[in-house]
Amino acid sequence: MLTLLGGSGFIGTAIRRELDVCGLPYQSISRAEVDYTNRSHFREYLRSVQPRFLINSAGFIGRPNVDACERARAECLFGNAVLPGLIREVCEELQLPWGHISSGCIYEGTKPDGSGFTEVDEPNFCFRSNRCSFYSGTKALGEEVLQGAERCFVWRLRIPFGAEDSERNYLSKLMRYERLLDARNSLSQLQEFAASCISGWQREIPFGIYNLTNPGSISTREVTEMMTASGGISKQFKFFSNDDEFYQQAATAPRSNCILDSSKATAAGIGMSPIREALEKTLRKWTGM
Amino acid sequence: MLTLLGGSGFIGTAIRRELDVCGLPYQSISRAEVDYTNRSHFREYLRSVQPRFLINSAGFIGRPNVDACERARAECLFGNAVLPGLIREVCEELQLPWGHISSGCIYEGTKPDGSGFTEVDEPNFCFRSNRCSFYSGTKALGEEVLQGAERCFVWRLRIPFGAEDSERNYLSKLMRYERLLDARNSLSQLQEFAASCISGWQREIPFGIYNLTNPGSISTREVTEMMTASGGISKQFKFFSNDDEFYQQAATAPRSNCILDSSKATAAGIGMSPIREALEKTLRKWTGM
Repeated sequence: MLTLLGGSGFIGTAIRRELDVCGLPYQSISRAEVDYTNRSHFREYLRSVQPRFLINSAGFIGRPNVDACERARAECLFGNAVLPGLIREVCEELQLPWGHISSGCIYEGTKPDGSGFTEVDEPNFCFRSNRCSFYSGTKALGEEVLQGAERCFVWRLRIPFGAEDSERNYLSKLMRYERLLDARNSLSQLQEFAASCISGWQREIPFGIYNLTNPGSISTREVTEMMTASGGISKQFKFFSNDDEFYQQAATAPRSNCILDSSKATAAGIGMSPIREALEKTLRKWTGM
Repeated sequence: MLTLLGGSGFIGTAIRRELDVCGLPYQSISRAEVDYTNRSHFREYLRSVQPRFLINSAGFIGRPNVDACERARAECLFGNAVLPGLIREVCEELQLPWGHISSGCIYEGTKPDGSGFTEVDEPNFCFRSNRCSFYSGTKALGEEVLQGAERCFVWRLRIPFGAEDSERNYLSKLMRYERLLDARNSLSQLQEFAASCISGWQREIPFGIYNLTNPGSISTREVTEMMTASGGISKQFKFFSNDDEFYQQAATAPRSNCILDSSKATAAGIGMSPIREALEKTLRKWTGM
């Protein structure tokens, strides 16, 4: 049996689907059922159910977007930096292997030579770089809190997209926003991401951090062109003329746009499909047109 | 009636003494009595007792020193950054004025002209400056979480010293450590600090941040000279020859040494006595010789 935290969320739902596909039994617990923010309740629960593995897909995200985290600072810090540390302590005490869903949004841009950031590169879009959203700051602190954790996977997701319409789905966001910011990014096909997480645990690859993005990168404009080319979309995508216009009119907190190097995951046998291939396949099944 | 959180600690004890001196009735609550980390329990408690003012002297400190915070990251973040945010939310909801005990350790050194840091200077020993102890990082985040808070005092303490021997008392530390690091700092006489906090609330000075240190600064060596001169101390104080030696032999996390400008507090009528005067007076009554 596996234990899943945050199973009702956008990422958690994809994880549950993957566990079902793999025929892996699990218990998805909500804080109302088991207050896993309370160390002793959480420990007692895990002792009673004895899971083989735990997945933490709980975390604080801003609604409707990351700007909301600039106000809900304490909750954001708690969900993204304190909670992972609490889970770590309890899992280490019980010698329980586990995985934490982190984010690639702790980076900005590319390395000086234009290549993507690897798992050993220091975050450059975090409190320590003094230019970040509060959300990214807390996600990077979450990784600091997990430094040196035993039997722990840190899975970095970046701009999830999937076939089902959802306010959290990147493709749905592109359809809903009036104007878009053109920027180049690495992305994560959500179901492939979930499959890579589970598969890495099943194959017993080494614990540690993994960038789980589809190899390559793509610009917002290119994604919208692929959406239009896939047929059925009549929307005329409009773009901000530059970053300044975007930040003046649509955003408060700085946004991370970055390219990640996913070769460690590929080398470990849990690599995802190239970004354009993943997008084409997803767009064919997409329900949000 | 006032409510006090963290009343059993070193700072909390000084606050309680001051409240007793002022004849102000208060309830000092522990987390075992009222779990104030639980929003609804905390709100319910405050609704039932209807305090006029709340003081938060709860926080996470490393034992035996700040290096311990480099390991207990999640707890440190929770106690120093998340908890103040939670208290803020509940107090704002209930329109309850309150005060939070922060720290001057979010600064290092002096301003370029050699003067002390004021309340409007950005912290320079914090996650955002990317050189700090984890403890200082969390204290600075705590102030970020309180930015714009309504009816809220942020009282900055710095290296507390007092007449009673204690492992938290700077004078006691100087006696116990085998070797000392010579550095110039602003300090806070603990009982004067507590008096300034309470007095500011009673006099209805404007809410906001106050550096509550004794005017001036002093080096470690000068303090030990005053201790020797005060009589009764036979200890031969020994010093590290430089910072490198200190960090190689005695410390893990970088230490903040800084000078604060306390003129805002003085102008508001809650100023403390000059540092040498406060030290002399305290040494005359000190129980730790």
